[in-house]
Amino acid sequence: MDILHRIGILGPTPEPVYDALTTVEGLAGWWTVDTRTRRGSTGRVEVDDVIEFRFPPIGGFDMAVTESTPVQRVGWRVNDGPQEWLGTTVTFDLRQDDDYTIVLFAHRGWRQPVEFMHHCSTKWASYLLSLKALVETGAGAPAPADVKISNWH
Amino acid sequence: MDILHRIGILGPTPEPVYDALTTVEGLAGWWTVDTRTRRGSTGRVEVDDVIEFRFPPIGGFDMAVTESTPVQRVGWRVNDGPQEWLGTTVTFDLRQDDDYTIVLFAHRGWRQPVEFMHHCSTKWASYLLSLKALVETGAGAPAPADVKISNWH
Repeated sequence: MDILHRIGILGPTPEPVYDALTTVEGLAGWWTVDTRTRRGSTGRVEVDDVIEFRFPPIGGFDMAVTESTPVQRVGWRVNDGPQEWLGTTVTFDLRQDDDYTIVLFAHRGWRQPVEFMHHCSTKWASYLLSLKALVETGAGAPAPADVKISNWH
Repeated sequence: MDILHRIGILGPTPEPVYDALTTVEGLAGWWTVDTRTRRGSTGRVEVDDVIEFRFPPIGGFDMAVTESTPVQRVGWRVNDGPQEWLGTTVTFDLRQDDDYTIVLFAHRGWRQPVEFMHHCSTKWASYLLSLKALVETGAGAPAPADVKISNWH
């Protein structure tokens, strides 16, 4: 059971998208402003770093960086978070198609198609549009200013 | 391979959401303005009606209505459209949770997790947010005024 998405971000090269996926500052610009690495670093995150994404007061996710291939691919494994997310993986594959950086997103390894998976699928779409806005305009919509899609936020 | 989504639409009853999913005028208010039934009817669509959704100049989808259970469930089968969509099904399950009508969406039966499926997953999320906006504010963002998510629109 996988959540899959595709967006295209206007721009001549994939570097700005890769930076938004692999720096503390970039990630804080589209997913949640409360983003840090476990070792307290700033700038580029590295393979084996653990990134702590928090959405107060709800909780958050600890992501171990498993892959970071410049301007091509980023991979995370969920180390901590909601029970349904434990052990699942998130990948971002990038490529340049003319004027667009294409992002293929996958959140794989869900054990059951629970209602929370439906929610996360829609929510990932809205965060990917936040990533697109960040790179194209300089301003994303990270939590707590994210798009509220339901009573589950 | 299924596309799954969940949104919550503010409102005291599911009737307005059900109407937006089962009338020509409602559907034209959030998916595409170029919506009609094959028999040329207006108002409520019925089981066995075929709804023709068009997105000029790209093409569109013909959906046979397979189920329409008032304020609970709507089902479609894709009769015509892109090859990847043929024979797939779309369902909307509704329920009321306090102040929200919860919509569980599923587009089931994809044969392969092709790049077009990634695209359609993100695009469905943006159309479901258009449905939410239509019911909550009276104005959705149906094609051709839909949110452009990539070079594939």
